[in-house]
Amino acid sequence: MVNNTAKKLLNAVGAKALVTTQEDLRFYLTGFQSSFGVVVTDENSTRFYTDARYFEAATVALAGRDIQVMEYPRGEKLVELLRGYNSLGMPLDRLTAREYTEFLQGGYTIVDSADAFKSAMAVKSQAEIENISLACSATDKAFLQLLGEIKEGMTENEVAALLEYLMRKNGASGTSFSTICAFGANGSVPHHETGTAKLRFGDAVLLDFGCKINGYCSDCTRTFLFGDDGKHAEFKDIYDKVLTAHMLVKQNFHSGMTGRQGDAFARDYLETQGLAKYFTHSLGHSLGINIHESPNLTPSDESVFTDGMVFSDEPGVYIAGKLGIRIEDTVTLSGGNVVSLTDSDKKLIIL
Amino acid sequence: MVNNTAKKLLNAVGAKALVTTQEDLRFYLTGFQSSFGVVVTDENSTRFYTDARYFEAATVALAGRDIQVMEYPRGEKLVELLRGYNSLGMPLDRLTAREYTEFLQGGYTIVDSADAFKSAMAVKSQAEIENISLACSATDKAFLQLLGEIKEGMTENEVAALLEYLMRKNGASGTSFSTICAFGANGSVPHHETGTAKLRFGDAVLLDFGCKINGYCSDCTRTFLFGDDGKHAEFKDIYDKVLTAHMLVKQNFHSGMTGRQGDAFARDYLETQGLAKYFTHSLGHSLGINIHESPNLTPSDESVFTDGMVFSDEPGVYIAGKLGIRIEDTVTLSGGNVVSLTDSDKKLIIL
Repeated sequence: MVNNTAKKLLNAVGAKALVTTQEDLRFYLTGFQSSFGVVVTDENSTRFYTDARYFEAATVALAGRDIQVMEYPRGEKLVELLRGYNSLGMPLDRLTAREYTEFLQGGYTIVDSADAFKSAMAVKSQAEIENISLACSATDKAFLQLLGEIKEGMTENEVAALLEYLMRKNGASGTSFSTICAFGANGSVPHHETGTAKLRFGDAVLLDFGCKINGYCSDCTRTFLFGDDGKHAEFKDIYDKVLTAHMLVKQNFHSGMTGRQGDAFARDYLETQGLAKYFTHSLGHSLGINIHESPNLTPSDESVFTDGMVFSDEPGVYIAGKLGIRIEDTVTLSGGNVVSLTDSDKKLIIL
Repeated sequence: MVNNTAKKLLNAVGAKALVTTQEDLRFYLTGFQSSFGVVVTDENSTRFYTDARYFEAATVALAGRDIQVMEYPRGEKLVELLRGYNSLGMPLDRLTAREYTEFLQGGYTIVDSADAFKSAMAVKSQAEIENISLACSATDKAFLQLLGEIKEGMTENEVAALLEYLMRKNGASGTSFSTICAFGANGSVPHHETGTAKLRFGDAVLLDFGCKINGYCSDCTRTFLFGDDGKHAEFKDIYDKVLTAHMLVKQNFHSGMTGRQGDAFARDYLETQGLAKYFTHSLGHSLGINIHESPNLTPSDESVFTDGMVFSDEPGVYIAGKLGIRIEDTVTLSGGNVVSLTDSDKKLIIL
């Protein structure tokens, strides 16, 4: 009774046992969400130890699966529970220095499992892509509903609150990150802190938002105009160019290419338009259980992208104190091609 | 130009430099929220290194303060930036094993700063208590507004979404944790996963919720009846007893007592009522920048509580498959006494 995913990781890591305590990684191995527990995989079995709060629900959820649910022995230290294994696979970028020291002093050899998890989690299963698609669909619906309810005088905070509420109403369990809402020139700060600015006729609105369903994330950015005050010729021109950059990635990026190549489809085009210097971040990042996963689409990432990876395509142009435009979809690679998972219309909206 | 808070921590830790990279601890030292940066304090100065995204905003926010804002040297490893100090104070329960190894290999001695941060952060400044009070006030207002909008047929998810929206509308930047909404017997699971159950006349409703304002948390739980179907005699009886347990803590807990003593005021009373076996968690936890801080009010915590600490008072009774009642306020100690920061009426509400 050994879980396939965990066994593959155990083999990749090459320790006697794979020991996983981190909430997101535990969820990845078990498909069961919990705030306490440890998954232990050796060559014979995979055991999920958790406490009284989760024991019954986990037993039901994992019935017939290749994972044995056990109650964590109350008061026992993990360093004692694992006696019998001389080497343990654990993620060194997540294990704390205190835990690490305790295991070393306990006589264990620790083998880093971080890269094995990153590689495995980069390629999503069909079930994972379905969950991400559900989150993306709720994200799209909420955005369209928001457009019908957004009114002059609302603050950035109120618009963000309403959008988060609508995602929740469409089935989300919560947001995948804190919503960014920026009115007017506030959009020129890529990580603007959503605040108390009030929406005025003619404002550009930048919204970066996402939600979680069944433990999986979505990520989307839309920029639109709240009325046209006739002063937006440059905005409209740049909007079209950012959208072209976004679409060039979708059309030209294929399985087998690197993150650097993906980034370049957008960046090289913006360079020809004299806008690359205003594209101050990378094109995209992978997402799944976490909103930021590996690999990335940056000018230096040589990771090869394959079918089943899920990532953002989000070029942006920011001119300080003037305007900010970012257009982002969550996408996946399928049959070698980019397929959009968030997909509300990206033609410039003027409310 | 050395920050007082950081200098005290440096002295308590006894290293050449206090080095703080963790987002919450960095915010505690600087009062400035950012997703990247490091605060370095030695006997002469406190420097906050951050990147281009935050440099300008941090410079403005920290002008006239005893912290120097500097741009982090692009591409330089932290292990190199700190050359010149032979010992570094860092929190070993937060530093990753990978970072720790890198510093050890770099020839540094690492002194644990975790306990010093925990002690310092346990006692809140007046400004911190004001921020927590703002969050608590938004929490109270949102709950009262929710009572006017809750309707038969709404799902747990919808009620949670509406409550989160109302907290946002009242000034919150987001939630301090994922809202728990449980209808009927679902309340008997202390960490019930908010789901698709629909609200019916006569249901008990348990809501555990909180929000953040200016980076500080609130935490509140209310249990009430959505109509009285005449079957709630036991519920009402137990509600009164949980409320009595909650109030006994407020009346009898004073500065100078231990977390164990605080827990006992509630637990001993519930024991006299034959209910202590259903009170399956501890009485409370500290909160502030994070929703769970130290010290705690548990049957074994011997920490002494003092004026300026902020914590939850949350006794509960859970009878599996039948009912769950929890009543929680965020409180502080002032002039030796407990003062409530969330404080909406706790008399049993029957809608």
